[in-house]
Amino acid sequence: MSANSTSRIPVIKITDNEEITTDDALAIEEPLEIRLAYGPADNRSIQNISVTMRTPGNDAELALGFLFTEGVIKTSADVKKIEHCFIACAENKENVIQVSLNENAEPKLNNTERNFYTTSSCGVCGKTSIDAIKTESAYTYNNSIIENQVAADLLYKLPSILQKHQKIFADTGGLHASALFSDDGELLLLREDVGRHNALDKLIGAALNENILPLDQYILLLSGRISFELVQKAAMAGVSIIAAVGAPSSLAVQLAGEFNITLVGFLRDQRFNIYTQPRRILLSKYEDSY
Amino acid sequence: MSANSTSRIPVIKITDNEEITTDDALAIEEPLEIRLAYGPADNRSIQNISVTMRTPGNDAELALGFLFTEGVIKTSADVKKIEHCFIACAENKENVIQVSLNENAEPKLNNTERNFYTTSSCGVCGKTSIDAIKTESAYTYNNSIIENQVAADLLYKLPSILQKHQKIFADTGGLHASALFSDDGELLLLREDVGRHNALDKLIGAALNENILPLDQYILLLSGRISFELVQKAAMAGVSIIAAVGAPSSLAVQLAGEFNITLVGFLRDQRFNIYTQPRRILLSKYEDSY
Repeated sequence: MSANSTSRIPVIKITDNEEITTDDALAIEEPLEIRLAYGPADNRSIQNISVTMRTPGNDAELALGFLFTEGVIKTSADVKKIEHCFIACAENKENVIQVSLNENAEPKLNNTERNFYTTSSCGVCGKTSIDAIKTESAYTYNNSIIENQVAADLLYKLPSILQKHQKIFADTGGLHASALFSDDGELLLLREDVGRHNALDKLIGAALNENILPLDQYILLLSGRISFELVQKAAMAGVSIIAAVGAPSSLAVQLAGEFNITLVGFLRDQRFNIYTQPRRILLSKYEDSY
Repeated sequence: MSANSTSRIPVIKITDNEEITTDDALAIEEPLEIRLAYGPADNRSIQNISVTMRTPGNDAELALGFLFTEGVIKTSADVKKIEHCFIACAENKENVIQVSLNENAEPKLNNTERNFYTTSSCGVCGKTSIDAIKTESAYTYNNSIIENQVAADLLYKLPSILQKHQKIFADTGGLHASALFSDDGELLLLREDVGRHNALDKLIGAALNENILPLDQYILLLSGRISFELVQKAAMAGVSIIAAVGAPSSLAVQLAGEFNITLVGFLRDQRFNIYTQPRRILLSKYEDSY
């Protein structure tokens, strides 16, 4: 992936007024148009669903994850094939991808209107947005009988494991990452992108391909800050524990709370904050009592 | 602004397996719907232009800046008034804002289709996107006779000035900032938001209100990474020097190069990288030659 995800360009590096002319790796950012083909064979429709600025690589996962987290498809079983469409163009890049659904699949296309989750019903407010997602999510968020739990000592270790494996970031300093860990701290999936929502869509697309949804027995680690949109996507995939190196927004915390998701922020240097559902986090001083 | 831009919520802080229950400030994230009212008095149209997840505060600047950087309006003289619309809703927040244009103003509404800059003409590629912006920009990017220049020694100081003034970030650890400096390092404008594109739209909206465009005699400082979209917005406002604490993407560098913008990244700890148009950066060891 790294070969197509970074590009070397000339740069002048200034340190204390001394200059060195060299070249450096940058994260590639290019548009990706996601198209959907659906309907019966004798009356097939093709529709442009979205254009996102993304880092090339794992495009099929990105398209699959996006359609799922936006509620356009409910299951990857609806998908027949996903492939790039080459378009006559001077640069001829792989910037259009088409997702072809099975003939009997019924995509929910009203969701693809601009900013669906934030424009429904009575107006525009956080509450409405959260209610819209509740209706859409494929997974119920009742208290399960068997819940996953994670020790604080294990959480402390995850950012350094992520960093060690974040190859493109190491080269460029310019990428967001989403990672999925098992509840004993094994890194299962890692995806990177210039857009944090794309990194998560790629990860969820990969998880769909591996048929491991809902993700309620794993830990989702995010490299940066936690926005409403990231919690929304995680909720669509049934995630129960989100940990992030950065800060959450107010609405991210509110949404996590309503969806019974444990939200951890500022995870760095042997410390973190728990914003919602702390019962899934185990502190070693209490271990005797479990 | 800070009072409406942050909210205190309960949090459990874990450090080395010790927990403290307290409360903490978070950056507020709420949707803002931007509506446009235009046309003659006897046939007025109202159109929903965009919904963005933003931090409340400076909403009128955000709406103005967004319409300008997206090419919907060419000048703030087109705008009659900007005001929040209260909508019947349980939470009754200020999440809808309406921009009313003068009767004779002609907004360019095809630009508001989803992701205009990345979907035009031959397909989807970086080249097309850049060409689209070239057509749209209100300012020409020929080499001017009088260009601004900035000393490396002055650039080194800007991030710490920004940090000192970034009040909401200091409280929450969760906000992006855009700042405008004079060429002798005075902080003129600073705007913060959970979304980096919103922070820049607010800044450009404020600059429009102060009637100081094009911004070719200033330095634009960005707190994070530099995406294509941020360079696009800066280009629409006639910015000539962009400095950022984080890394640029490949397409951000390409766009800056084509628009004759000096792009500086990784500005921290007495060092930075120059990606494009280095002639505007002065090193002290060359000072005698100027």
